[in-house]
Amino acid sequence: MHYADGRKTPCEDVLPKQLAHCSDLNTSIFINRMIKSEKPDLIVFTGDNIFGFDATDAASSMNAAFAPAISSKIPWAAVLGNHDQESTLSREGVMKHIVTMKHTLSQLNPQGFKAIDGFGNYNLEVHGPEGTNSMNKSVLNLYFLDSGDYSTVSSIPGYGWIKPSQQFWFQETSRNLKKKSKAKAKAEAPGLAYFHIPLPEYAMFDKSNFTGVRQEGISSPTVNSGFFTSIVEAGDVKALFTGHDHLNDFCGRLSGVHLCYGGGFGYHAYGKAGWARRARVVVVDLGKDENVKSIKTWKRLDDEKLSVIDEEVLWRRRSSGGRRKKPVDRG
Amino acid sequence: MHYADGRKTPCEDVLPKQLAHCSDLNTSIFINRMIKSEKPDLIVFTGDNIFGFDATDAASSMNAAFAPAISSKIPWAAVLGNHDQESTLSREGVMKHIVTMKHTLSQLNPQGFKAIDGFGNYNLEVHGPEGTNSMNKSVLNLYFLDSGDYSTVSSIPGYGWIKPSQQFWFQETSRNLKKKSKAKAKAEAPGLAYFHIPLPEYAMFDKSNFTGVRQEGISSPTVNSGFFTSIVEAGDVKALFTGHDHLNDFCGRLSGVHLCYGGGFGYHAYGKAGWARRARVVVVDLGKDENVKSIKTWKRLDDEKLSVIDEEVLWRRRSSGGRRKKPVDRG
Repeated sequence: MHYADGRKTPCEDVLPKQLAHCSDLNTSIFINRMIKSEKPDLIVFTGDNIFGFDATDAASSMNAAFAPAISSKIPWAAVLGNHDQESTLSREGVMKHIVTMKHTLSQLNPQGFKAIDGFGNYNLEVHGPEGTNSMNKSVLNLYFLDSGDYSTVSSIPGYGWIKPSQQFWFQETSRNLKKKSKAKAKAEAPGLAYFHIPLPEYAMFDKSNFTGVRQEGISSPTVNSGFFTSIVEAGDVKALFTGHDHLNDFCGRLSGVHLCYGGGFGYHAYGKAGWARRARVVVVDLGKDENVKSIKTWKRLDDEKLSVIDEEVLWRRRSSGGRRKKPVDRG
Repeated sequence: MHYADGRKTPCEDVLPKQLAHCSDLNTSIFINRMIKSEKPDLIVFTGDNIFGFDATDAASSMNAAFAPAISSKIPWAAVLGNHDQESTLSREGVMKHIVTMKHTLSQLNPQGFKAIDGFGNYNLEVHGPEGTNSMNKSVLNLYFLDSGDYSTVSSIPGYGWIKPSQQFWFQETSRNLKKKSKAKAKAEAPGLAYFHIPLPEYAMFDKSNFTGVRQEGISSPTVNSGFFTSIVEAGDVKALFTGHDHLNDFCGRLSGVHLCYGGGFGYHAYGKAGWARRARVVVVDLGKDENVKSIKTWKRLDDEKLSVIDEEVLWRRRSSGGRRKKPVDRG
């Protein structure tokens, strides 16, 4: 969202005719339009929720940025980007503020795991419908991670990365969910992961093998910290969703995992005049057995019609004739 | 070493004139020669200690393989390769046998860290001389890791890799050693890491920027699990030593860390006829302040003279006019 001071904060990279009346409020209006049209069950914000450098007061900016989600009373979750801490609060401070806000499911960090790096690493279990066999187990595993801001290692330039402590927590969590899932039913729950900075593997696609556009370089860290390997090894996560690059909005598939951008959303962020701001929708369908049978996605443009583009299937359970490979257990 | 059944196990890739009288015993003789000439304080075996496929009994093979080290009464340490478990014992069984052997400092796994992947992950602190300020602190941090055998993930072919659990343990250990070191003295202890399978970053060198030879491809895992990033981030490890590729013996420097091969040692392993088996020596010098001031290395060939080749400095403490960059703290 790149939210700052609301009405006072101008838009970037919009058409000359839009400029005069364009501000952070256009970002708020876009959220409201999205909520009205999609009626989501969960809203996820993938970082740079505020653009700290231009925000007079971090808490006020966050209150304004998340206000549409809060007003809707729909549960919402957020992770940190690289700009959230550039105002009056540290990364810890920003995340501590977020977790106190109404209707959020965001968490500061997992309980019982002290040494984790960053703030805003947590997971959510989406249980099956009440009254069914799957009501007490996760049918969809959601992971949220702090991908950091900037490297603090002198020999490594550039952005931060997801650390071993976070990957260890992720793999432990995934393993425990798989165990619980096996104890209760045969079908393993698929997972989705949300964080801000794209992994180096996002650079492995081109027009021939992704859906969407790539209009700028992939601003991943300059090192590979292995999170993609950890994801493939864990096996449950079928798609990643990141922010960070406002001009890239594609999804590409690698080793059975879709690597997706959310799409540039905020008006006080760089963009491309005449190229609409956009948001990604993810729809998860349950089969008759109350397990997830497919995961689909599309984007909506902030144009007159809130146009739907790039609809695609991210995952389909194999027993339903999909393309998932046979899962293999570790060790 | 690729040890199997001793005298009955023939050599591979030696000259025709050597073949008739060449067996695993030549590997033992080479160890004894190395011990006599270098009188080391510690002997490290970097995996594929036995070539399980040809070893009738894993325990007997190990007893024979490590016998020269044991007879010398010099402390020794070993990690697992990808061939150690191919005889009558599992990886856990092999490591459990090793830790019971005389004069070894090998450990099964770190205490108090249950969920670690693999077997034979441990660290050793080399303390300063008795009676000095550094006698109760580590002046040299040694790390030993299990780099696995083969991938068990269907979408990832090839060799195993160092997992998030191991990297998390490594970073926690490094952090705690740094804290203890800071509490006792200003100088941080450098570190060395030993494991079997080379990291993907070993492929980033060519003749222009390494010392030694590269005569075959780098047989690293097909994925990057981020251990090199973890090492650079931790900051203490100045050099890595791996086995696995018997025809590569180089050291190259990347982001302040030397990536080294031990050099092909065992006679019941592929090699190159006429190209001598070899071993790497690492020498650590203490300064007047009882802190490590430099780390040097060379190799010795198993030829008539036990020739010394490729001598080089791996690290020198900056205060002694060396080339170490200013260390930067995390966070």
